[in-house]
Amino acid sequence: MREVAIIGVGCIKVGEHWDKSLRQLFAEAALTALEDAGVDRVDGVYVGNLASATLNSQQHLGALMADAMGMPGVEAVRVEAADASGGVAVHEAVRAVASGMLDLAVAGGVEKMTDAKLPDVEYAIMMSERREYVTHTGVTITGLNAITAQLYMSRFGAKYEDLVLFSVNDHKNAVNNPYAQYPFPITVERVLESPMVADPIRLLDTPGVGDGAAAVVLCPMERAGEFTDTPIRVGASTVATDVVNPYEREELLTLSSTRTAAERAYEMAGVTPGDVDVVEVHDNSSVMGVIALEDLGFVEKGCGHKFVAEGEIEIGGKLPTNTFGGLKARGHPWGATGVYQVVELVWQLRGEAGKNQVDGAEVGLAQNVGGTGATSCIHILRRAD
Amino acid sequence: MREVAIIGVGCIKVGEHWDKSLRQLFAEAALTALEDAGVDRVDGVYVGNLASATLNSQQHLGALMADAMGMPGVEAVRVEAADASGGVAVHEAVRAVASGMLDLAVAGGVEKMTDAKLPDVEYAIMMSERREYVTHTGVTITGLNAITAQLYMSRFGAKYEDLVLFSVNDHKNAVNNPYAQYPFPITVERVLESPMVADPIRLLDTPGVGDGAAAVVLCPMERAGEFTDTPIRVGASTVATDVVNPYEREELLTLSSTRTAAERAYEMAGVTPGDVDVVEVHDNSSVMGVIALEDLGFVEKGCGHKFVAEGEIEIGGKLPTNTFGGLKARGHPWGATGVYQVVELVWQLRGEAGKNQVDGAEVGLAQNVGGTGATSCIHILRRAD
Repeated sequence: MREVAIIGVGCIKVGEHWDKSLRQLFAEAALTALEDAGVDRVDGVYVGNLASATLNSQQHLGALMADAMGMPGVEAVRVEAADASGGVAVHEAVRAVASGMLDLAVAGGVEKMTDAKLPDVEYAIMMSERREYVTHTGVTITGLNAITAQLYMSRFGAKYEDLVLFSVNDHKNAVNNPYAQYPFPITVERVLESPMVADPIRLLDTPGVGDGAAAVVLCPMERAGEFTDTPIRVGASTVATDVVNPYEREELLTLSSTRTAAERAYEMAGVTPGDVDVVEVHDNSSVMGVIALEDLGFVEKGCGHKFVAEGEIEIGGKLPTNTFGGLKARGHPWGATGVYQVVELVWQLRGEAGKNQVDGAEVGLAQNVGGTGATSCIHILRRAD
Repeated sequence: MREVAIIGVGCIKVGEHWDKSLRQLFAEAALTALEDAGVDRVDGVYVGNLASATLNSQQHLGALMADAMGMPGVEAVRVEAADASGGVAVHEAVRAVASGMLDLAVAGGVEKMTDAKLPDVEYAIMMSERREYVTHTGVTITGLNAITAQLYMSRFGAKYEDLVLFSVNDHKNAVNNPYAQYPFPITVERVLESPMVADPIRLLDTPGVGDGAAAVVLCPMERAGEFTDTPIRVGASTVATDVVNPYEREELLTLSSTRTAAERAYEMAGVTPGDVDVVEVHDNSSVMGVIALEDLGFVEKGCGHKFVAEGEIEIGGKLPTNTFGGLKARGHPWGATGVYQVVELVWQLRGEAGKNQVDGAEVGLAQNVGGTGATSCIHILRRAD
């Protein structure tokens, strides 16, 4: 198995791109990544996307995007794992390069959500859960997260105002991210005053609806020097699943898929949670971000909210988290989110994070989750010196 | 890169499975493949599917199917490349095993088409073409194939009654396939008397609508002996694309994606077209089967119809083709088709093809196509003696 390096990254600003097609969004991010890598052609294209059939009346995105990039002929495929599609696209591309079957690959994610009606957007994401047992009840992902938040608060004595510090941190970090959907600060008070979505979760504690695309270029580590002075090593790339129905899980406050994928990833990369300098987690509400920090082994189960309240996830804290805004403030264009996370880690590990730079960041971890946790994808990246 | 072997196969009969869910269809095929391989667990699950969002209100099929198989926790993902999704699922699974990152993997395809209304079925497959330029015109895949058939007949002096011998051959072979949707013989006369779908293509020259699922179990070649006495070697697994809009292609009577993928596959497997003993092609109408034989290098461009008319694609001919019924008669449950092809080749190479056995079959090739040819996936399998 060959070691794999990331040699180029690119993304577009998350937002309402009514003037651009699904193809344009992807091509813009992917060609930016190619330019960053200094290559004009790749051997393979991996596209992560959740909802183009439902929201854009379009499938077959592998071929479509290879074509849009001006390189029809190359190998191309779309992968889907709910809103972990982006992370999993990177994962599959890493495999392709690791296996020796491809040399240069681009892995990107794209989602165009703002052209559709909101009920269709809700319907599209709910297909990530089991149709017969969860989707048909009419519950939303935020509704399911609200149950988790209630249980977390009750079991661990956490207050909602502590939890939402996670979202507040996201917004603080987004201010310096030109690609963020909501680059403005918020306060706990503002979150608590915002409309209730599903008790206790407030509007300013949930991601918005946005269009986005992000991409990375991969090559074998041994060739990375041809393209860049700052290759980033893919230390680990893992995917794990869990039973799909949340109510069938042994424990609602633990993401077993994240634990499994993280265990494998730490072993694969030869690092421990203590070695991680910067982390991106899948916070599709504050409570899920807090739980992620626990399941990734950064803090004891039930103590994540204290860790957040103590400011440890801020830049300058013990574990800078979601340093470009996370799902809440950078935005959560489903199939692209996992790729944005990887792009942002690369900026940190290259030392290109500007005002949000984590000093001396050498190891970064990204956690991308599908639905309420049936899929987790973990990447551990390392600076290659 | 490790060599990869197929050690188990399974499928269900293509048909109207109103009593079974999407999960059940997949699980039945996948667990049959596991039983065939003599394993009770795999490390990864690859699911090929085109249309579950549109026809079954369900996505996230990787986790869903791992769960349905009773092995939540394992790595799982869905791949989509229009009706090449099944072949590409096998391709990605081959990569995973070849890379050393997974040892045992199942790759399957599933499609549940008969629960939906027919216009939705047509809509779902048309999303394989570009929405803005092709889909919106209202043309169907059969309509596009009809244009190709007219051009083929005009340029090469072929008669439609010669072309449809391809479908007649499919039906003849399906008679002995217990998993075929239409296991009965047809005649040229019957095809010509059947209703016109898109001039010149008649109803009995197009695949029907059916539910289906098929699966294969893969492991590294070096471990295959632990599980079976008849491992089948994956000699090559390739994917290539073409521009998506048919009218932008240089040549309508050549599938450039098939040619590119085939070139790579022959090189990878170290064989020539002349070494191939049995072939499965993606005949979503007779003319596409004929063109596939040409683009795979078995016969000169423009001579495929003569090859068919001379009976060379029959079992006992020079190149037994679609020996279990092909898309026309085994059935074409989109996301599963490419996996059925691989399963059927394995039966041939193991010598388990019963009345349809090709004597001494050692090398088999499968060609799975997405849409009108924007994606082609080729597998070359070899008996491992």
